[in-house]
Parts: sequence; C-alpha cells; structure tokens
Amino acid sequence: MALRVAVAGASGYAGGEVLRVLLGHPAVEIGALTGNANAGQPLGSLQPHLLPLAGRVLAETSADSLAGHDVVFLALPHGQSAAVAEQLGADTLVVDMGADFRLRDAADWERFYGSPHAGTWPYGLPELPGARAALEGSKRIAVPGCYPTAVSLALFPAYAAGLAEPEAVITAASGTSGAGKSAKPHLLGSEVMGSMSPYGVGGGHRHTPEITQNLSGVAGEPVTVSFTPTLAPMPRGILATCSARARPGTTAESLRAAYEKAYADEPFVHLLPEGRWPATASVYGSNAVQIQVTHDPHADRIIAISAIDNLAKGTAGGAVQSMNIALGLPEETGLSTIGVAP
Amino acid sequence: MALRVAVAGASGYAGGEVLRVLLGHPAVEIGALTGNANAGQPLGSLQPHLLPLAGRVLAETSADSLAGHDVVFLALPHGQSAAVAEQLGADTLVVDMGADFRLRDAADWERFYGSPHAGTWPYGLPELPGARAALEGSKRIAVPGCYPTAVSLALFPAYAAGLAEPEAVITAASGTSGAGKSAKPHLLGSEVMGSMSPYGVGGGHRHTPEITQNLSGVAGEPVTVSFTPTLAPMPRGILATCSARARPGTTAESLRAAYEKAYADEPFVHLLPEGRWPATASVYGSNAVQIQVTHDPHADRIIAISAIDNLAKGTAGGAVQSMNIALGLPEETGLSTIGVAP
Amino acid sequence: MALRVAVAGASGYAGGEVLRVLLGHPAVEIGALTGNANAGQPLGSLQPHLLPLAGRVLAETSADSLAGHDVVFLALPHGQSAAVAEQLGADTLVVDMGADFRLRDAADWERFYGSPHAGTWPYGLPELPGARAALEGSKRIAVPGCYPTAVSLALFPAYAAGLAEPEAVITAASGTSGAGKSAKPHLLGSEVMGSMSPYGVGGGHRHTPEITQNLSGVAGEPVTVSFTPTLAPMPRGILATCSARARPGTTAESLRAAYEKAYADEPFVHLLPEGRWPATASVYGSNAVQIQVTHDPHADRIIAISAIDNLAKGTAGGAVQSMNIALGLPEETGLSTIGVAP
Amino acid sequence: MALRVAVAGASGYAGGEVLRVLLGHPAVEIGALTGNANAGQPLGSLQPHLLPLAGRVLAETSADSLAGHDVVFLALPHGQSAAVAEQLGADTLVVDMGADFRLRDAADWERFYGSPHAGTWPYGLPELPGARAALEGSKRIAVPGCYPTAVSLALFPAYAAGLAEPEAVITAASGTSGAGKSAKPHLLGSEVMGSMSPYGVGGGHRHTPEITQNLSGVAGEPVTVSFTPTLAPMPRGILATCSARARPGTTAESLRAAYEKAYADEPFVHLLPEGRWPATASVYGSNAVQIQVTHDPHADRIIAISAIDNLAKGTAGGAVQSMNIALGLPEETGLSTIGVAP
Repeated sequence: MALRVAVAGASGYAGGEVLRVLLGHPAVEIGALTGNANAGQPLGSLQPHLLPLAGRVLAETSADSLAGHDVVFLALPHGQSAAVAEQLGADTLVVDMGADFRLRDAADWERFYGSPHAGTWPYGLPELPGARAALEGSKRIAVPGCYPTAVSLALFPAYAAGLAEPEAVITAASGTSGAGKSAKPHLLGSEVMGSMSPYGVGGGHRHTPEITQNLSGVAGEPVTVSFTPTLAPMPRGILATCSARARPGTTAESLRAAYEKAYADEPFVHLLPEGRWPATASVYGSNAVQIQVTHDPHADRIIAISAIDNLAKGTAGGAVQSMNIALGLPEETGLSTIGVAP
Repeated sequence: MALRVAVAGASGYAGGEVLRVLLGHPAVEIGALTGNANAGQPLGSLQPHLLPLAGRVLAETSADSLAGHDVVFLALPHGQSAAVAEQLGADTLVVDMGADFRLRDAADWERFYGSPHAGTWPYGLPELPGARAALEGSKRIAVPGCYPTAVSLALFPAYAAGLAEPEAVITAASGTSGAGKSAKPHLLGSEVMGSMSPYGVGGGHRHTPEITQNLSGVAGEPVTVSFTPTLAPMPRGILATCSARARPGTTAESLRAAYEKAYADEPFVHLLPEGRWPATASVYGSNAVQIQVTHDPHADRIIAISAIDNLAKGTAGGAVQSMNIALGLPEETGLSTIGVAP
Repeated sequence: MALRVAVAGASGYAGGEVLRVLLGHPAVEIGALTGNANAGQPLGSLQPHLLPLAGRVLAETSADSLAGHDVVFLALPHGQSAAVAEQLGADTLVVDMGADFRLRDAADWERFYGSPHAGTWPYGLPELPGARAALEGSKRIAVPGCYPTAVSLALFPAYAAGLAEPEAVITAASGTSGAGKSAKPHLLGSEVMGSMSPYGVGGGHRHTPEITQNLSGVAGEPVTVSFTPTLAPMPRGILATCSARARPGTTAESLRAAYEKAYADEPFVHLLPEGRWPATASVYGSNAVQIQVTHDPHADRIIAISAIDNLAKGTAGGAVQSMNIALGLPEETGLSTIGVAP
Repeated sequence: MALRVAVAGASGYAGGEVLRVLLGHPAVEIGALTGNANAGQPLGSLQPHLLPLAGRVLAETSADSLAGHDVVFLALPHGQSAAVAEQLGADTLVVDMGADFRLRDAADWERFYGSPHAGTWPYGLPELPGARAALEGSKRIAVPGCYPTAVSLALFPAYAAGLAEPEAVITAASGTSGAGKSAKPHLLGSEVMGSMSPYGVGGGHRHTPEITQNLSGVAGEPVTVSFTPTLAPMPRGILATCSARARPGTTAESLRAAYEKAYADEPFVHLLPEGRWPATASVYGSNAVQIQVTHDPHADRIIAISAIDNLAKGTAGGAVQSMNIALGLPEETGLSTIGVAP
C-alpha cells in the first residue's frame, strides 16, 4: 500500500524538488500540497516542470491540511517547523528540510539564527558515521544544509582516519537556487549571470556551526572551520573545495585508502578514479556525490573536493534517502545517481 | 526477459542521452557501447554523469560488437548509419538517431546532405497523424531531427485543421548541445555564454526539408517553410516560435479547439492553459513538450510556440518512445514528463 | 566648457548604463543623480561597477534636484516623464529613455499603455530616414525602445527600397536586463539561466506599435507587424530575426545594395560581409549594430537579422548619440563601436 | 606623435583584448597584427567585436612583420616569446603577456613548464612593492598571470604588514576565457554552462610558483601556497578567495588599516567599504580590482577576496598599465575603471 506523503511549502525550490523526486518513488502517493501566499493556486503555474501535478491546487499549511499522511516534508522558512511538527502525530514521519532541528548546541542556534532553539532531530546525512543507525525507525528527520552535506562528505573521511589537522578551510560555490525563490534584486538573472561573488564571509554563514558540528563529531575533537560560500552563475550545484593541513605521515595513498574505506558501500558517493575531479554538471538533478582527494606535498595540505546538486542530494534527494532509511525501505528507492548532462 | 540494447556512438551527446534514458527503462539491459576515436576508453571518463556505467569500456563500432542485441541505437555522423544497419539482422530493431532515413525525397536529401540517399524508414514522431501506426512492429525507425520535432508539433494541428495558410515562418532557439560534442571554436563556452546568434539562415539548414515534409504531409498541399535557427546560451532546449497567416475565419478559439483535439490523448504533449507560454527550463531532461497557440488579430497570424529538450524529446527520448511503440511496450515506459527545474 | 548632465532614475539599468556611457564622454560633467526609493544611498552600493561615482549620493527626483543642468536624462517608469519634463526649462535638453513620447498615435498609446498620451518628441533613432534632421537642435528627445531599435534597423532599408511586402514577421531574443531591475520571481537567475521563453505573444508587447510606426513611416504604407519577443539567458543583447515576403524581383543582390546604401555613412551600423551573421556578444557594451540580410529563394522571403546591446545602442548609447546630434557635437563623441568579447 | 604598436598573436583572447584596450588609448596607433594559423585572414572574422579593425589582415609572426614598432605585445604560447623578443631591437618595448619571463627561479620554471628558463623581466604588477619603479623606463615587461594578479593583490598587504602567517590557502574561480581560444571538448559551452569544476589541484597549476614568488617577496620569508583554481560558467572574471592564519594581534581593524595604506594611491584598486564584497560582474571589461578583507575571529584567519577581469587587469589591461609606466605616460591612460554591468 502506498505511503501518503504531504509537502508543506510546495511552491518553493525545496518543495518543488522533493515533489520531483517523489514522483519517481514507487512506494509513494502524493497527498496534500500546501503553501501560504500561494494557497489556492494550481501547482502548474508555480512549478510548471511538474507536469503530472499541474492541476493540483495548493492548500493552506495547517494541521488540518497536513493530517492523515504517513510522511510530511516541511519546506518552510526557518523557525516555522516546530509549530507545524507539534501538530502532527508522533507516528507521522516528519522530514524537516529547514534548519530548525539540525544543531545540537542551543547557543550556536541562537547566535546564528536569532531565535530560541527548537531541539535536535536525527540528522539526515546517512553517510556520516553513526547517522544511518539513528535514522532507522525514526519519526523525525532533520535534513542537513546543502553546504554541510557537500563539505562533510568531502572531509569527514580524512578526520575519521586521523589524517587531518583540526583546522578546515573551505570555499564553496553554489548555484543560485540555494538562495531560494524569493525575488531579491541581487538574485536577478541580470545580476548573477556572468558573476561570481562571495557572501557570509568571515564565519557568518549559518551553515558554519553545522559543518563544525559534523567534522568535530567525526574527529573527536573540536575542528575549527573557516567557511566562505560564493554564488556561482548556474541554477544548481555545489562545488566544495575543502582543505586542511595534513597530519604527519599523511600521503596521497593513505588518503585514498581512507576515502575508499569510508565510501566502499555507499550507494550515492562516487570516489572518482585518480586524476579525475568532480564537476557539478555530472550530478545535475541526481542524488550522486562526486568526490576526489589528494595531498599537496609542497603545502603539506589535504585537498578534498566534492560536487553535489544542492537541491537534490543537498536537500530533497537527501531527504528522501533518509525517509527510505527511516521507513525500512531500500535506501536507493526512487533515487537516481544519473546526472542530467550536458 | 530484458531487452538487450546496444548504442553505437556512445561517447557523444545523443549517445549519452539515450543511455541516460535507457538506464531508467525497466525492460532494458544495456549491452554493447561502441565508439570510434574513443574505443577502449571507459565511459566514466567520457560521460561522467552516467555513474552506473562508469566502468563500461567502449568497443569499436562494428558488426561484431553490435551483434546479438534486440535493439541497436545508432548515434553516428550522417551517412554512416546505412552501412551499419545493413550488417544487423532484419529482426534487430535499429533506431537511427541520425538523419539518414528521415527524408522521403531523394533529391532533397542529396541537395542538403551531399551524398546518395539511403532510403526512408518509419518516422519516429508518433504524434504526427499516421506516424504511430507505421511504427508499430517496425524493425527500423528514423528518429526525427530536434528542430523538426519542436516545429512540427507546434504547427501541425493548425494545418491538420485547415486553419493556416501554407507559408510557415519559424525562428527557433536551440541550446548548444544540438551542435554536438566536437570541439569547434565558435562553440566554446567563452563564445556562446552571453550570446545569441543565427546560423543556416535563408533556407540552408538541413532540417528545413524535414520540416517541409512534415507540414506538407499534414496539410495535404505543399507548405513553404522559412526556417531560421539560432544558437542560445544554454546547454539544452529548443524554443520554436512558429507562425503562419491565418485562413479566413480562424480565431483563437478554433485554434485552441484544434490543438486540444490533436493532443487530447498524447501522453507527452502538454497544451498549456490559456495565457501561459512554454519555457525550455520546464522540460529540461524530460520527454515532455509544452505548447501554446494564439491568433494575433491585428496581424491575422497564428503564433504557435513549443518547448522541448533537444536531446530528450528532440532525440533520445523520442527515440525510446518510438522503440516502445515498435516493440509493443506501453509508450510511456521509462520516459518522464517531469523537467529538472529550476 | 563641460555640459552639466543630470540623470533621473540613476539606480536602474538604463540609468546606470547612461552613466557608464557618459563617464567616457569628454564634453560632459556628471551632475545630479536622482532616484526615489533609493534616494540617500551612495551609488557605490547600487551600481558597484561605476567606480568613479561610487561616493555620489542619490537625491530625490524633483524639479529642484534636476534644475541647473544643460541635459537631463530621464530613466523613469512610463507615465512619469511628462510631469518631470514640464518642470525643466525649455532650453534644457531633456532625453527621455522611457516610452512616453515615442508614439505619434494617441489611440495606440492609450491602448498599449492605458494612460493619456503625453505627446510626441523627436525620435532618437538617427539612422531612420529623416530622423537625424529632426534631432538637430531639438531640446526634447524620445529615445526608442530597445526592440524597435533592433527591428527597425534590420528591416527599414528593405522597405525604403520597396523590396518587401508590408507584412513583417519578427522574433527577437533579449537579455534579461531589458526587463529591468525590479525583483520579480520569473526574472531570478535560477529561473532564467538555461531557459528560453516568450512573452507578450500575439501582438501584445508595447513595442509593437512603435515598430509598426517606424516601418510604416519608411514604407509609405501601413506595414502589419507580427512581433514575438523572447527572454534569453544572458544579461544583455538583442538578436532580432526579421522577415517579410519579398516583392517580385527582389534578390540577394538588390537587398545587399539597398542595405549598403542605407548604411554607407552610418558610424554605428555595420553591415557584415556576406556569409557572416550577427552575434550579440560582438556588440556587448558598445553602440554598434551588426546587420546581415539575405533572400531565401525557396520561401521567397527576406531575412534580416540585427544584433545590438539592448542597454547601449538600444537605450543609453542611442540616447547619447541623439544628444550629440541635438547639441551639434560630433555624433560619435563618447561612444564606442568595440564590443567587450569574449 | 603616436606610438606605433604591434600585437603578435592577435587572433586569441589575450591578443583581442589588448587590441580592445589599445583602441581606446589616445597615444597609440595600431600597427602590425600577426598570427600563425590565421595569417592572411581579416580580423573581422576572428575578432568580430573589434569593429574598427575589421578589415585588417593578419600577417605571419616574424621579425619582419614586427619590425619598426615602438611597442610589441606578445600573446604567444609559452616558450615562444624569447625567440621573437631577441629579434626585436633593444629599444623596442616588448610586453610579454605569456609566462616566459615571470619567474626568477629557473628550477621552478623548468619543473612547471618543462622547458629551459628564458630569463626574468621586470614584473608588470605595479601595485606590488617595488614593482612600479622597476618598470619605469624598462624595455621589457613580463605581464603577470591572471590568477597571480588577483591573488597577489588580495593578499600582499597582509604580508607587507606582517599580519599573516606564511601559509596561504587560495581557491579561485575563473571565467572560461582564461583557458584560451583553442577548441577543447571540456571547454565547449555545453560542458561549462551550469558547471563548476576544479583543475590543477594539489599544487600543479603553473601559476602556483608565481604566486609563491610574489607573496614570499613581500613577506620577506618563504610563504607556502595551496592554490586551487576552478572553472566557472562565465566568459570572464576571477574571484580569488584567499586566506591565511592571522598572526597574533591581527584584527579586522589592523587589516583594514594595512589595506587602506597599501591601496591609498592606487588608481585601479578599489578597497570596498566595510560590509560589501567583490563581484566579478562589477569589473567586467575594466582594469579595476575590487578587494575586501576581514578577520574571522572564530577561525582566527584572514579572509581576503579580490575580483578582476582576467583578460583586462589580469592580462591586457595590466599590460597596458605597465606599458604606460615604462613609457612615462600617465598610468591611467586609455584604461577604464568602469565595469560593463549588468
């Protein structure tokens, strides 16, 4: 029998993407689609690429409209998920694609988000040590941020294997869909095409504490994170260029061995053959992660680079992957590792 | 039992796309992948987005390498398909994604392609009147060109209903993948980003006789075609802006009725609600076609616009759709109407 | 002595571009810069590319702030120019980059713009027959729309020489800056990158009556215009693909002769050598126009294609060109025919 | 009297850009334009954006064709400049936009370029301490690489002021024109649009020793450089994200003071107001450099980011700036600080 799934916030990019993924999921039946400003409108005018749902009309996001579903995906502005989740029964699987339940440290939350901490849910990055087990059978899932997904997967094997000093320096380039669908002048096509620009520089980006939490957790000691996000002229994709000073004795070979071990059984993470490097185009629209790592002998640093689709593995694909685990379905159900390229 | 499918020319864009589609086809097992210059290389280095096939190695295109398959897709430069097809058994389904067997008029072929005419195969645009029946059970399929697909679907209902004068004026914008994967200076990213430019102006583009053949066949009289293709700064997609003078009595309502009738039962063609117009982003990576039509009362012209993905519905998706029909499979098997957007 | 020049609406794309051009004009001193919502802000935060003006602060648009200048450029939403112009002295040269004073037919104005007609000023497309003379010494200039600039220059020589039937069919692709700097969801980078889409289809675009006025004026008879604009994934540029049925006897040679004659002495219009076609990248940031024309013998149609920069020759460059003429300066002063490419 | 200037390698991107800049230089008359494969072709077909030179025909690159000029710009593949330069008189100013004479360390040269070291010429980055003086009156100039320009300007003030530890970690995103005009499959528009990808990872990029040379020279001690270049989906521009651990006592204020001091009198370097960050679009087509710097207190690192146009300030604009200095002309002659945006 099909799982009945609702999506709250179906008019935005995360909501649209989770619907795109769920439309290909054989165990799912799509139930309520809700919005706020857009309630009453047909999805066809809001998400014209989702042809099979073109005639569906958005309901108001409310306890009523979301009731009676097996799974509810939340694609809401941060700070709004807790109130909605409370109204859903304890046996409804709630998958929050927002930030509200990602951080364990309440002080971090308050410093970066400026509101009271709502709590912590099992973290939907199954590839992280221990994460998959915590997701099994869970009724609540906090989907990771897009940057933390890309960065954590690029770097954690080096920390897990004790090969990296606890100071990570990260620059990541993201497609513009990461900034959402709200119309802001600096996100106009005229502004972003042909331009690269940084933002949240100097430790201010909200994904910084989440990256720190992930890497420190794996390293077993505090990892200092310097994270600079940049906006790239493309709709989707994150390329995360991550580096850390190597611990004594680290070599390209020991790194490769550590990454091969970490990802040997992971269905979505593809450690590229030596000499080839990730490109965001290769994972466009898919749940795949491309990773490569090397040691720069002159600077004695580890360089690990990952490419993901920020909306897919970085948000909605990762969310469905975690849903599959929570529900005991095969983890790959409904998910693709095939990018749409060129 | 799975159909065994080979792809000749697997390193190019059409070959890569048909593999992307076939990987999602439940009745297919992917057999030989062949190339010429790239024979011996792993697909992972040529098509890094096709993760499940990364380790497959390209064979030489030959009768031997292509033998023993139920279906063979040809993605070869024009003029090469006939020789390969001859070597394949009469009960192998051969789907030619090149131009060789599209035109019925040998003189047209010779004028536009400069080589002897190889023949004519059933034409893989099932939505055209009569085309689907000709494909059923066929062992040979000529996949239409990408522009003829977009243009014919935009205009044929107007001709079928006798609403348009037999002079079509067409401007189409195509993504750069339509020009193939051969490295030519004018196709460099530096040249095409930020630029729109026409080519093949004045009736010289090879898709002109194919468009003429399709529209004239439906109209039952010769249709004169003025076709101007332009290169747009995007990897995929065709937006075809098509117009023709209206026959007396044609109205927006009679046009809409004609298009609704033509596409009522078509699974891949989506006539948009009135007031909404196609966008190539909405069909990115999918086999869907978006169409809208109107009547400009001042100029007394019909304006019909379609959007397709040139590699998907315009090439490889259309090819698999026709394969399904030829083999008696449900037409939608393995094909998506969901675009990857934004 | 330097001309003192003010710009009303300096925070938008037209305002920014006229400043970019004027900064390179040797006879100009930049005076007041005004805005409404952005008054009080430094230009450096609104137009960060205009480094020499980074510290200038926007004043409110008012009679006071604009007083005391030799030239005032208006880059205002349509309907607002008349009120501002009235407050400026009759010996101030007022250059309106909006639509208010372009149309001669009040009924056309009211039908397309929905407000009372403000009047008609000398039309700032000097290449049109008669237009240059009307600009000389004028104190009021109506700068043409960007599409009418591209289309009129592509087609008028054919009409002037009596080579074209009076039914023009036009498709034009524009960069997104043509839609302005107001943040609207469909103009987000995420939406426009990778997408082509039409708008204002079926005769509804406001530039249609202006194109009709220009072509009919040259033809000496009413020309029917079918105009379809499309949005292209690039910040700047218009590629206008224009066609009309050829009058009997029209040949590629007679067309070329007509265009050579029309543009023999024009400093900004470049009729390309035979066989080469325009590209918007070639005129990026410049006041140049690239044009090519041919005759399609099979369809017996004239195909004329132009490329301009919509903000430069299509708006601000054309405005400065007309200013030069009005003031008796050499027409090319401060204007470039060199594109920024690749 | 005008300086007579020749450009060897006029068909490529660097050659085209130096011509674009020189066309706006009031003291220059453009003489011989040379090429190899393209000799005999008109520039109009190779650089269609350079309208005023459309009819000029390329000569063979040779001592004869380049003789009799006051200045010769070399835009040649590396390894070819020395032979050409030797044939030019000692009183011809030779400006090499290639790599041949940038490095002082012959071993570095041989390791990264695989050919014998040709020598070292005065280095054309006038903003570097001591560089301007070395350029004055010189008859030979080595134009810096595009990445070293962006990175050195972003970081050297921190090293000059003793605020940074000698380990720099740099990620830079470059537009595709940095890879040149040779047609290679991975540089096709279809491949690069929508994609970010790294290359030369792990210390292998040839600009690494040049960056090291510049930063170590300023620091007065060896600076270790970890440099990762990435290819971004845009034609032009470099965004360099540079970081280094802060020396004890370094603050945002001491950094700002150091940068203000370094750039107080520099005409082309714009240290942005606090809180605003560079964007490549803002310097498109101009010789300007946008820079911002901050201190991340949590990670205790300096983050300095610069944006340049790789072809302009990063190659041809910087070359003309250095030419001006060498010849005793005002340094800003013919150079713009106004970007072409949006």
